[in-house]
Amino acid sequence: MQAFFLPGIFGYGEVIYMQMKKRDAKKLAVGICGASGYTGMELLRLLALHSHVDVTAITSEKSAGKKVQAVFPFLSSYTGLTFEPMDREKLLGKADLFFLALPHGASQEAVHYFFSRGKKVIDLSADYRIRDPKTYAAWYGLLHARQSTLKKAVYGLPELYRKKIEKAALIANPGCYPTSAVLGIMPAVRNRLVDLSTVIVDSKSGTSGAGRKADLGISFCEVNEGFKAYGLVTHRHTPEIEQEISNLAGKKAVVNFTPHLLPVDRGILTTVYLKLRKRSDTKAVLALYNKAYAKEPFVRVLTEGSLPNIKHVRGTNMCEIGVMVNERTNTLIIVSAIDNLVKGASGQAIQNMNLMMGFDETEGLCQLALYP
Amino acid sequence: MQAFFLPGIFGYGEVIYMQMKKRDAKKLAVGICGASGYTGMELLRLLALHSHVDVTAITSEKSAGKKVQAVFPFLSSYTGLTFEPMDREKLLGKADLFFLALPHGASQEAVHYFFSRGKKVIDLSADYRIRDPKTYAAWYGLLHARQSTLKKAVYGLPELYRKKIEKAALIANPGCYPTSAVLGIMPAVRNRLVDLSTVIVDSKSGTSGAGRKADLGISFCEVNEGFKAYGLVTHRHTPEIEQEISNLAGKKAVVNFTPHLLPVDRGILTTVYLKLRKRSDTKAVLALYNKAYAKEPFVRVLTEGSLPNIKHVRGTNMCEIGVMVNERTNTLIIVSAIDNLVKGASGQAIQNMNLMMGFDETEGLCQLALYP
Amino acid sequence: MQAFFLPGIFGYGEVIYMQMKKRDAKKLAVGICGASGYTGMELLRLLALHSHVDVTAITSEKSAGKKVQAVFPFLSSYTGLTFEPMDREKLLGKADLFFLALPHGASQEAVHYFFSRGKKVIDLSADYRIRDPKTYAAWYGLLHARQSTLKKAVYGLPELYRKKIEKAALIANPGCYPTSAVLGIMPAVRNRLVDLSTVIVDSKSGTSGAGRKADLGISFCEVNEGFKAYGLVTHRHTPEIEQEISNLAGKKAVVNFTPHLLPVDRGILTTVYLKLRKRSDTKAVLALYNKAYAKEPFVRVLTEGSLPNIKHVRGTNMCEIGVMVNERTNTLIIVSAIDNLVKGASGQAIQNMNLMMGFDETEGLCQLALYP
Amino acid sequence: MQAFFLPGIFGYGEVIYMQMKKRDAKKLAVGICGASGYTGMELLRLLALHSHVDVTAITSEKSAGKKVQAVFPFLSSYTGLTFEPMDREKLLGKADLFFLALPHGASQEAVHYFFSRGKKVIDLSADYRIRDPKTYAAWYGLLHARQSTLKKAVYGLPELYRKKIEKAALIANPGCYPTSAVLGIMPAVRNRLVDLSTVIVDSKSGTSGAGRKADLGISFCEVNEGFKAYGLVTHRHTPEIEQEISNLAGKKAVVNFTPHLLPVDRGILTTVYLKLRKRSDTKAVLALYNKAYAKEPFVRVLTEGSLPNIKHVRGTNMCEIGVMVNERTNTLIIVSAIDNLVKGASGQAIQNMNLMMGFDETEGLCQLALYP
Repeated sequence: MQAFFLPGIFGYGEVIYMQMKKRDAKKLAVGICGASGYTGMELLRLLALHSHVDVTAITSEKSAGKKVQAVFPFLSSYTGLTFEPMDREKLLGKADLFFLALPHGASQEAVHYFFSRGKKVIDLSADYRIRDPKTYAAWYGLLHARQSTLKKAVYGLPELYRKKIEKAALIANPGCYPTSAVLGIMPAVRNRLVDLSTVIVDSKSGTSGAGRKADLGISFCEVNEGFKAYGLVTHRHTPEIEQEISNLAGKKAVVNFTPHLLPVDRGILTTVYLKLRKRSDTKAVLALYNKAYAKEPFVRVLTEGSLPNIKHVRGTNMCEIGVMVNERTNTLIIVSAIDNLVKGASGQAIQNMNLMMGFDETEGLCQLALYP
Repeated sequence: MQAFFLPGIFGYGEVIYMQMKKRDAKKLAVGICGASGYTGMELLRLLALHSHVDVTAITSEKSAGKKVQAVFPFLSSYTGLTFEPMDREKLLGKADLFFLALPHGASQEAVHYFFSRGKKVIDLSADYRIRDPKTYAAWYGLLHARQSTLKKAVYGLPELYRKKIEKAALIANPGCYPTSAVLGIMPAVRNRLVDLSTVIVDSKSGTSGAGRKADLGISFCEVNEGFKAYGLVTHRHTPEIEQEISNLAGKKAVVNFTPHLLPVDRGILTTVYLKLRKRSDTKAVLALYNKAYAKEPFVRVLTEGSLPNIKHVRGTNMCEIGVMVNERTNTLIIVSAIDNLVKGASGQAIQNMNLMMGFDETEGLCQLALYP
Repeated sequence: MQAFFLPGIFGYGEVIYMQMKKRDAKKLAVGICGASGYTGMELLRLLALHSHVDVTAITSEKSAGKKVQAVFPFLSSYTGLTFEPMDREKLLGKADLFFLALPHGASQEAVHYFFSRGKKVIDLSADYRIRDPKTYAAWYGLLHARQSTLKKAVYGLPELYRKKIEKAALIANPGCYPTSAVLGIMPAVRNRLVDLSTVIVDSKSGTSGAGRKADLGISFCEVNEGFKAYGLVTHRHTPEIEQEISNLAGKKAVVNFTPHLLPVDRGILTTVYLKLRKRSDTKAVLALYNKAYAKEPFVRVLTEGSLPNIKHVRGTNMCEIGVMVNERTNTLIIVSAIDNLVKGASGQAIQNMNLMMGFDETEGLCQLALYP
Repeated sequence: MQAFFLPGIFGYGEVIYMQMKKRDAKKLAVGICGASGYTGMELLRLLALHSHVDVTAITSEKSAGKKVQAVFPFLSSYTGLTFEPMDREKLLGKADLFFLALPHGASQEAVHYFFSRGKKVIDLSADYRIRDPKTYAAWYGLLHARQSTLKKAVYGLPELYRKKIEKAALIANPGCYPTSAVLGIMPAVRNRLVDLSTVIVDSKSGTSGAGRKADLGISFCEVNEGFKAYGLVTHRHTPEIEQEISNLAGKKAVVNFTPHLLPVDRGILTTVYLKLRKRSDTKAVLALYNKAYAKEPFVRVLTEGSLPNIKHVRGTNMCEIGVMVNERTNTLIIVSAIDNLVKGASGQAIQNMNLMMGFDETEGLCQLALYP
């Protein structure tokens, strides 16, 4: 991967300056399809600080022909970049790796196109996450037309599949809610602490999770000072959480998943309730969580008595986890927090890219939380 | 324009005008102890539109000697009222009914004092809610020094105890979280739909629930754009919820209760997960809920597919309830929403007063939600 | 409990109860055209507590055929009311007074239709506010096709035109920004304190001012945690402010008006800068303001050193005003606060109706601010 | 300054990793006095991404003895750092440059102490900003006890004083409001476009500007959904703005400055009204602004018709400026936006450090706005 490293004679400040000025032939050329939504914007925000990447193409149907800065004045370092329509043939030669931030359904073909022509692909839609095409069809109401490609996809949760990701050419980037739930639950399942017949996942997400669009339901006055549950029982992230918990457990797990809409821009807090198989206490469980995540750069297990806050992870790729055993009820309660646009989407996508390309896993993802 | 006036000697407009100008000897004289906190303020806001009540005394240690409008310019109809220190002897003659909005612990004696001297008392603290003094001691870390008075207190949830409240002289006004949880759960328990060994109550409250005070933890920049769980496992509303669910069930229920802090001023949304005893569906459960609450002026059971939003009840005494059966997991999910300062505190206190005094139950509580 | 009832045949509680159940032949029948926007919703919210009014017809193209509660579950007292399309002939017989909450342009004909058929009309659009058709044409880009009706319209700012409003049949309900600006400036102009060649009006409005609609620009994530100026130099409320200030002054005033978008639901705060004609101080100016508004039920002039907050007037028809003289710069600074949906729109419309119909001016408008 | 550059053999990812692990002898040792407030926290957040700096000491009286992560779990890269009390003698040997984020008054002596012992000092308080000790005394109610040191201080606004800053050893870091106002006004004054007898500066700041503290007035429920002016006429940033405008003009300018409190965490938007000396238009003025800031890395002049939003600069050191001429009133209106904690405080302090130390001016300050 030496090819992607910077020449050693420049200091970081100068390099950033260069990055802001011109393309570097030694960098990885990256394309982003669907770059005018929030996950696309977030990829641009984060990649601006990535040393080994050059964003060479971005697509948007609505903004095609416009400069990045004409649409997003605050993405001020992308002086040379213009949105283009999604013409796959034209895009093919422009980048070596593609992030696809398209609606589910639309991603099936787009992923297949780039992947089958030798490009590395990180798909941020749901199209390649569900291993079982029948489950996908049942929950998404769509047939999967590219099942052979689906088999090549690796579920991009590095804390579970790092080795596979390093060798993968196609990543199905996890959903935001599943990321928060599965990271919270994983050590409990791996250590066989809990009964999986009664998994309760109660999640609360910031409004950016609904996407960037004109929609009365997410207009300011409808969301602000409000709070509600939605998608009860039917939310499509349910089978994704079940798939990963079942994989970890080696048997089928069934999940009650309830999402709620928070009047904040960013962040998911997930509260999980799991019945303990035998009596335990917070200290013992915490020790197992600390062990499970000791080497993870993007998971922070909190000390006893501390609990996550979405504000602690805002703008970062970090997942904060707090655990507590309710000894009265023999229940393990896990609270996890992520930024839905970073660890829940674009940051995790970059983490996956770093692993695929042999970059440092944390490259471009070292910012601390914007607090307050 | 006489044609549009109400029958009677005075039109409504004139009555309101009178209310704003002078006291009416025929009205109930009401005192509020601890009137400078949010629940006290909310009592003042709501009572300003109550036709049969005259607020004759308000206490506050910090604001003693100041006029209401010097502290709260927006409480503009209370032109003649001044905060006074809590001198029980002086207060005794000033009112016939006292609302006590004091910290728990402090309320034990204050309630006893007024009650034992023949005054009607509505206590908004936790001191008279827990029937069992041992449970009170265990969760609140305090002995109850007035157990004979405790026995006279009626738990002021009208939907459960209306008849008792009508005859009571001492009301223990319910906690905000318990109100939302118990109203949500009641029909399921009464109809023996659910297994009570696995009650999960996941609640989310606006910040006014933390009270009106100088505290870094509830300063704007710490709360805004944040979301967190707190008081995990140990929150003192747990035994109150368990007491009422157990009463309804006729056997001991154990509850996992997790409160969270929402970056909004007002509102509690509670999501309850209950294992169904036998297979059922949303329609069937909804029919039971509709029946249970058919005559309740302050409970609104939503139609199938609709879900509560705290913004729908803002500023009102209404409790919105939505239910859904997850047939895959055989779980009943109930979502309820209240305004923590109204149905969760001061509005419910007024509803209790109306019942105790023989006023119309909805008097002073007819405002619609402030939306948006 | 008879002792606590109001004199008259019915107690207040019973009257409210009646109001919630059935129409009263002795009440004024009121229609609302454009009732599914925020100002229409707000009319419904406020009129639910109005003793002399019965809402008999509401229109909405999108929601035609739906019950109020199917669209707005929180407007729970309107059990019998259904949205209908705007069919003027059908509407004509249903009400005696119409509130029109239609887009400007569309109101020209609708106002004329109802007005010319003997109905009382309160128009919440801009179509009948600007006295001079040329000014209207220049700023709104539309010719005024009903200039004879325009001449009959009274500008509905009661603090300036109460006597005219009492006799009017057609009210042009003022814009939200102009209400806040003109009430703030009026006593200074009437008392000839200031030089009108340099009027600076810097206003900040909550997002409900933009209306209830699907629009990316007012989606939650675009507005929340943001703040910006908009409509610089060209905002259409400019000529309305100039018209009223000029009328007060008896000569042409020119105004710099800059609106800003606040990330809150409701409220306008306007900061006005006026050059003093001669040296003065805060006390002297405050005395004139207090005198000017001494008898106004909906203007609250604050004591020296106190300043308005939009939160103090939330949900109310009140205008809070604070003034301060900067003696270093010889400038009078006035800060005024209103709720844009109440005093800035629907509440003022009801105040105008009360005046036109001979009701008590404050009828239905006595709620205190929802705080916090 | 080569000494502070990184050795060239490492890629950026590895360097960051090293930075997170251990101190680098070749880096600049930096101390932060008053590191537990918001500006101190923000210095830590930004310096974590600075290649040439090692934070070696941080002080806080309240948190003395605690690890950074025990107080701020989200500052996760500072694994080795512990708060200490402000013992100047002990601190002296620990760093070569000190950022002082102490209250005004307290900074007078602390600055003098470090400065007179050869340390480089960047003072974020107001103590060394006002050149004239009499003006300082009049507005701050304090005598300046270190006037000889005061004379050595350079006002740290790089867009005005870059050359002086490069040679300075003591920087008075500008106030947040003055930064936004002076950057907005500077080109207009330098080009003699405006009459300075009528400067109106109407500013709106996020709540983090009030600091990190327990205070009822900035508690969530008091600020949220509210908006108000404060400090009218008397705000201490007034003489600072006047000083810099007067310096630019070469004659005394007098300013009306009105700050307002926004219910957001971060951001200042300042709207300036200036009377034009002769007729002009937006295009002409914009050309002068573009020229003035053409080479500035942290000023973004917007194209005609575009206006700043605090959300566009959130978390960044950027100042966005929009200008418009109101030809009807012959007034120049300038709107500027900054993040009060970055360009308004800690980011500008780092920019000043970069200039003083010969680092690239943008080092550590290249993040794009966190949007949404």
